[in-house]
Amino acid sequence: MEAKAFPMNSGDGAYSYTKNSYYQRAASYAVKEMLEEAIAEKFDVTSLSSSSNTIRIADLGCSIGPNTFITMQNLIESMERKCHSQDRTNMPEFHLFFNDHASNDFNTLFSSLPPGRHYFAAGVPGSFHGRLFPKSSLHFVHSSYALHWLSKVPEDLLDKSSPAWNKGRIHCKNASEQVANAYANQFAKDMEVFLDARADEIAVGGMMVVIMPAHPEGDRPSQSMARVALDFIEQSFVDMVKVGSISEAELDSFNLPLYSPSLKEMTQLVQSNGCFSIESMELTDPLSKIVCPLNIRALVMHLRAVLEGIFTKHFGSEIIDELFERTLDKFAEFSSLFESCCGQQDTQLFLVLKRK
Amino acid sequence: MEAKAFPMNSGDGAYSYTKNSYYQRAASYAVKEMLEEAIAEKFDVTSLSSSSNTIRIADLGCSIGPNTFITMQNLIESMERKCHSQDRTNMPEFHLFFNDHASNDFNTLFSSLPPGRHYFAAGVPGSFHGRLFPKSSLHFVHSSYALHWLSKVPEDLLDKSSPAWNKGRIHCKNASEQVANAYANQFAKDMEVFLDARADEIAVGGMMVVIMPAHPEGDRPSQSMARVALDFIEQSFVDMVKVGSISEAELDSFNLPLYSPSLKEMTQLVQSNGCFSIESMELTDPLSKIVCPLNIRALVMHLRAVLEGIFTKHFGSEIIDELFERTLDKFAEFSSLFESCCGQQDTQLFLVLKRK
Repeated sequence: MEAKAFPMNSGDGAYSYTKNSYYQRAASYAVKEMLEEAIAEKFDVTSLSSSSNTIRIADLGCSIGPNTFITMQNLIESMERKCHSQDRTNMPEFHLFFNDHASNDFNTLFSSLPPGRHYFAAGVPGSFHGRLFPKSSLHFVHSSYALHWLSKVPEDLLDKSSPAWNKGRIHCKNASEQVANAYANQFAKDMEVFLDARADEIAVGGMMVVIMPAHPEGDRPSQSMARVALDFIEQSFVDMVKVGSISEAELDSFNLPLYSPSLKEMTQLVQSNGCFSIESMELTDPLSKIVCPLNIRALVMHLRAVLEGIFTKHFGSEIIDELFERTLDKFAEFSSLFESCCGQQDTQLFLVLKRK
Repeated sequence: MEAKAFPMNSGDGAYSYTKNSYYQRAASYAVKEMLEEAIAEKFDVTSLSSSSNTIRIADLGCSIGPNTFITMQNLIESMERKCHSQDRTNMPEFHLFFNDHASNDFNTLFSSLPPGRHYFAAGVPGSFHGRLFPKSSLHFVHSSYALHWLSKVPEDLLDKSSPAWNKGRIHCKNASEQVANAYANQFAKDMEVFLDARADEIAVGGMMVVIMPAHPEGDRPSQSMARVALDFIEQSFVDMVKVGSISEAELDSFNLPLYSPSLKEMTQLVQSNGCFSIESMELTDPLSKIVCPLNIRALVMHLRAVLEGIFTKHFGSEIIDELFERTLDKFAEFSSLFESCCGQQDTQLFLVLKRK
């Protein structure tokens, strides 16, 4: 079964992902050097391209752009530098595959491909919780801020008779141990399927870089920016139940399919799959390159571009404006709480794997 | 420079290409057996898939579907049968690339991909009048009813001081020798670029099948269905100038970038390129599988799905309803002339090339 798809806001209007993905971009600047280093030190471009003189690269969960174009450009420049440093005369050709759900706005993605690009581009529709490419056909896989989306909401959360019923909440933060376990189990299943599929698709010696929210072992930071933001949204929903904008039952039956693992969880999942070696695993601050104080309104617009689709599907489009106005008010009211998180949280995992 | 793009009508509404591509589909049924035969007799699936166990196939100018899915399904079944007949135990995997201009509606294409397909799918945005894939990366290229679109209108047609100025006409039918030559020269240039790009992309031994309108040498049939249809549209435009719906200058400055070559022209262009052997070249009747009399209204809807985009770009959208109502009236008035063409015209080229 195709995994559930919650595309980012399409097009390039005021609420679009294209216009509201600044924070993801900041996060990708923060990892630019790490990506360059991983390629320089550990990606064997020469032997991987020896048979066909082509390097095939996939960006899984690329969304609409422009972030994916910037990252792919960096990636290819790093590989070209590596070839130059090895005095290669014939540069490999690069074939890039931009992947996201079939409901992603590929028309916008395709119409904004950079004109002078040094690569051949293709779009690949479908869930990365399953096979997307022929066996051993890829040399480099990149995935940024995509794997924290679960393939579905854990079923127990919606079952009133289950101890994991997540009444009145939209996530596992502040929730019971059972709810947290239901989330963790779903993530573990998803990762198993994901790693199996990639193990089939990536040639031996090929590399995979995963960037996603995560946290240190044993430390579930209650005050990370993402968690504070989710809290504000959850509280806005609770307020909307109180004033009758949505029903209690509507809120009870909604949960966000988002999860951030600990480093230990990730390590165990990769090791139990057994097809990849962990070349490097780091937690960094995704906002280290952003100047504080943050622009609160821009941040809420950004949350809207990412989350509007999934909220609309459950609650209907008529509640969206109210929800994000209420969320903005909470950000303004508790700005000191929020700003205390800025630049002090290592919540971004940078994981480099190699196909054994 | 990117070639001019005139996408088929998008989406799946009443005027969409998806709902109005019956005649192209009939044409593809008519070539189904020829395609199967070409693969059975001349496509070396085993040696082509020997290094990676993958067969990479591109459909160039695929439009939105569903025709491309039906043809690709036939193609893959033919290749699978060939593998079975050779007692191969490990089937190759198939990687399919659906190509069209970046302005093609890929979102509709991707959302209608057949669920149980036996292949990995990718979309490739860009003009086939240029490189789209890495060197020697393709094993089979298919292109149906796409190469008769020129990359641009020949410039001389718009130059009032040129003997090839095509005043009051939208095509080379009924026009001067100079106009016909300008069209032929543009087609020759386009084919040269097209064949050069494909020669780079197709591995030695790989195959290319081109299906497009064409005519026997020396015989430019004035009464073929397509030409009669273009005549009716041209006459409708002339009538619209008379009643003031469009200006004379607007009509004079418009020409359709469409061309159908003779078999001799095609042979010469392939031979002068030098990278492909002609394995087979046949003219058939594209409508041999359609029962006459034709449904005139359906045919005009079909013309509209294909041509509305290019007419709108030049004349504006407000003239489209009138244009196709007038064209429909002409079809009704001269139906006997039109029906005399049905089932009696070999106007479809089926060309099989192999990369030397």
